[in-house]
Amino acid sequence: MATALSELKERLGEIADLRHAGSVLNWDQSVMMPPKGSAQRGEALATVARIQHERFIAADTGRLLEAAAAEVEGQPDDSDEVRLVSKTRRDYDKARRVPSALAAAMAKASSTGYEAWVAARAADDFAMFVPYLQHNLDLVREYIDCFDEYDAPYDVVLDDYEPGGTSVHVRALFDELKGELVPLIAQLRDHEVDASPLHVAYPIAGQRQLSGEVIRLMGYTDDGWRFDDTVHPFASSFGRGDVRITTRFEDDYFPMGLYGAMHECGHGLYEQGVSEALQRTPLSHPPSLALHESQSRMWENFVGRGRQFNHFLNPRLVALAGGALDGFSADAVFKALNAVKPTLIRFEADETTYGMHIILRFELEQELLEGKLALADLPEAWNSRMRDYLGIEVPSDADGVLQDVHWAAGLIGYFPTYALGNLIAGQLWEKIEQDLPDLDAQIAAGELQGLREWLGENVHRHGGKFSSAELLQRVVGEPIAVGPFVRHLKAKLSDVYELPLA
Amino acid sequence: MATALSELKERLGEIADLRHAGSVLNWDQSVMMPPKGSAQRGEALATVARIQHERFIAADTGRLLEAAAAEVEGQPDDSDEVRLVSKTRRDYDKARRVPSALAAAMAKASSTGYEAWVAARAADDFAMFVPYLQHNLDLVREYIDCFDEYDAPYDVVLDDYEPGGTSVHVRALFDELKGELVPLIAQLRDHEVDASPLHVAYPIAGQRQLSGEVIRLMGYTDDGWRFDDTVHPFASSFGRGDVRITTRFEDDYFPMGLYGAMHECGHGLYEQGVSEALQRTPLSHPPSLALHESQSRMWENFVGRGRQFNHFLNPRLVALAGGALDGFSADAVFKALNAVKPTLIRFEADETTYGMHIILRFELEQELLEGKLALADLPEAWNSRMRDYLGIEVPSDADGVLQDVHWAAGLIGYFPTYALGNLIAGQLWEKIEQDLPDLDAQIAAGELQGLREWLGENVHRHGGKFSSAELLQRVVGEPIAVGPFVRHLKAKLSDVYELPLA
Repeated sequence: MATALSELKERLGEIADLRHAGSVLNWDQSVMMPPKGSAQRGEALATVARIQHERFIAADTGRLLEAAAAEVEGQPDDSDEVRLVSKTRRDYDKARRVPSALAAAMAKASSTGYEAWVAARAADDFAMFVPYLQHNLDLVREYIDCFDEYDAPYDVVLDDYEPGGTSVHVRALFDELKGELVPLIAQLRDHEVDASPLHVAYPIAGQRQLSGEVIRLMGYTDDGWRFDDTVHPFASSFGRGDVRITTRFEDDYFPMGLYGAMHECGHGLYEQGVSEALQRTPLSHPPSLALHESQSRMWENFVGRGRQFNHFLNPRLVALAGGALDGFSADAVFKALNAVKPTLIRFEADETTYGMHIILRFELEQELLEGKLALADLPEAWNSRMRDYLGIEVPSDADGVLQDVHWAAGLIGYFPTYALGNLIAGQLWEKIEQDLPDLDAQIAAGELQGLREWLGENVHRHGGKFSSAELLQRVVGEPIAVGPFVRHLKAKLSDVYELPLA
Repeated sequence: MATALSELKERLGEIADLRHAGSVLNWDQSVMMPPKGSAQRGEALATVARIQHERFIAADTGRLLEAAAAEVEGQPDDSDEVRLVSKTRRDYDKARRVPSALAAAMAKASSTGYEAWVAARAADDFAMFVPYLQHNLDLVREYIDCFDEYDAPYDVVLDDYEPGGTSVHVRALFDELKGELVPLIAQLRDHEVDASPLHVAYPIAGQRQLSGEVIRLMGYTDDGWRFDDTVHPFASSFGRGDVRITTRFEDDYFPMGLYGAMHECGHGLYEQGVSEALQRTPLSHPPSLALHESQSRMWENFVGRGRQFNHFLNPRLVALAGGALDGFSADAVFKALNAVKPTLIRFEADETTYGMHIILRFELEQELLEGKLALADLPEAWNSRMRDYLGIEVPSDADGVLQDVHWAAGLIGYFPTYALGNLIAGQLWEKIEQDLPDLDAQIAAGELQGLREWLGENVHRHGGKFSSAELLQRVVGEPIAVGPFVRHLKAKLSDVYELPLA
């Protein structure tokens, strides 16, 4: 006899399949689709999103949920079943508040906004983009209006990416982080570090091969992954057997391709590591973007830009550069990779200044949402904050307010998760260093399996079972905190600058 | 106020969007997906197919259809609106008979059957494949059992690919065709034609470039098409702005890549040429696979392997072969491209023997369906008919009964449309030659726009508005017939063999 729980799982499997379809349509749009396909793709995405939404919020989903909740009563609070029901109920209660037509309009606006952003950025013309951004903001406000229990409007969208997060809490963390970063950046920005070893010419075919070698060490396999080129790197997962990552190679700046690949592979490993038992359920993906980002940024920065991995990487870089790196020591490359150098583009920012790019966006999008900042004034607000936080002038909107895809795709409330991910990575890393005393030697030898297994066992396999706060409590025994990340930064920068920074 | 017709169109647009999603999932599975993704992809495909089916056969679709039928009453019989309603009603009445669970099971079996076929073919092991083929046959029989008005069970599945087609009619055409082909093949098969100009070494990068040049002359554009490599070439369309074709290159047999590309581009041009007004409706695709195939095979064989196009192509082939073709005249290449040479693989067959490959499959799949042939006996039945029709021995099942993907994907009743397409191409070609007196000179100069425009105006733009029988009547003034194709073949072969064959 079918239990309510098994019927609920069947319904949720169907929802997961529609999510799978929508994700493939999105991946294809970014990586494969010819440009003239965008209008019809937008229609298809909107329809799939609407049906996914409609079937999820159907009244019988609610009845199955109630019945399944009764069935699992008395089971341990951390069992898959109890968590499946509670996570689904939370999502259901949120989704029920959003009309299907609004969900479809948001999906469609995301697709058309993306195309408009590509064009506006190419033309360096913010005004071209304003109507699309305005439309996205209007839809986000309409979305927020579907809810009534929140302290700040921004909390509603933040919760979609970082469940349980609040703007008060994030602001407190970011204020603490800003208090550390701004003086650190001011102290170090004028120290000379030679960046030229990052800018020697590397053939792109060789870069692709090296990136392939590195991600294979991380856990990439040809039979369960794809690795493609895009303008804006991203990771997608359509199940444990189909994880896809992209990067962007530049022939005179190898960190773009290699660290993009490591970053996205970090995301991919998380998706791939969720236990089989949670597949095709709402628990089959990580619980929060901050936790997701903790993985990508740990692999990119803690591992990839660390001193130990540089031992492994440097001979390969030297071979790849065909003589062009001959004048530079391994130490020079390590220092260049970690130098504090304020730049225009978030995506290219060093590990230290990166946080300020995020804090800037977090502040601006809150002000936009709350109506404290008009869209027409956004470029100037952007540019003035770049001056205040990083001390640099923004020469064009293409390299300023138009640089990121997120707002174009309707993703407001998403940016802070990047910096929160850094904080979590710092906390996990201190725990990993305790648990894996050989970690440094392993990384220096290119042996990354031990780290991947630790992450799989402690973080990945749980998928969306625990909130990021719960997971952190289980793994490191404390809530999200700024200290470990700042300690990591200061230790690394002390090494780079040969200065005491603690 | 929304009319029933506009509400119906909205519903049908949603169905078209789900078809779009399913097609992208299928394309991705064939061209991009890593192998371990297949199980979860199969689930997603099944869910999308089931929802598409459920929403189409919903009772309110029927009510909208009735109301829309009343609204369009009195409009001209060949108006878009009248045809939309009548075509939809025909599809609806068929689809209502098929339970959603069966449709989903067929979609899933198609996906798992494909993977099993890939493995069985690689292992040259028909027995490995039997359970999957048996399952597909069982599902097809279950599907046929949903219908009650047919003369032969096979007619039910044939109608899915060739609406209005019957096995009695196809058998009559094929018997006439067989009566022409078997003696023609027997007469010519032992005449010596040097095939070696087809087998000189061509670098694959150069082949890809030449194929790209040719399909661009046909109408391919970078902003609305994709061109990829697969084991088994195919065409997909996700709307007028996103048409995708694939081919397979072999470094010692250039016709595989080039003619595969021309063939699939012929399909793609048909999809792309359907008028904008019919997009996102059931009329947005060609009405029958035979008509579809008439286009691909016309471009591949009537144009691509014709004497005129050879004038255009030969200098390019010579350049591509880097000296290897130096001993061969253009005439020698033309003759080799059209020589009658029985071979094992349908996909590599010349234009003359091709029909016998199809007739063989048409006969076998009817016998399987009707229970006259046991699956265990299929390889021997295949091999013995290859001996009778083409005079060749089949050395392995991989090159025999396992060579095609169709049955693996559950496509029974599909094969005859290939040969019917040749017949239709013959009829259209005689009409085109009357309407375009400069055609030969244009083709010899690589000017293919006139032909594409004729096809666009007379065939493509109508999409699925008219059945293939109606369209033929409108364009050539007669039903499908064997004569024109046989005249075309004999004229070309008289040229190749320098023999009178009329």
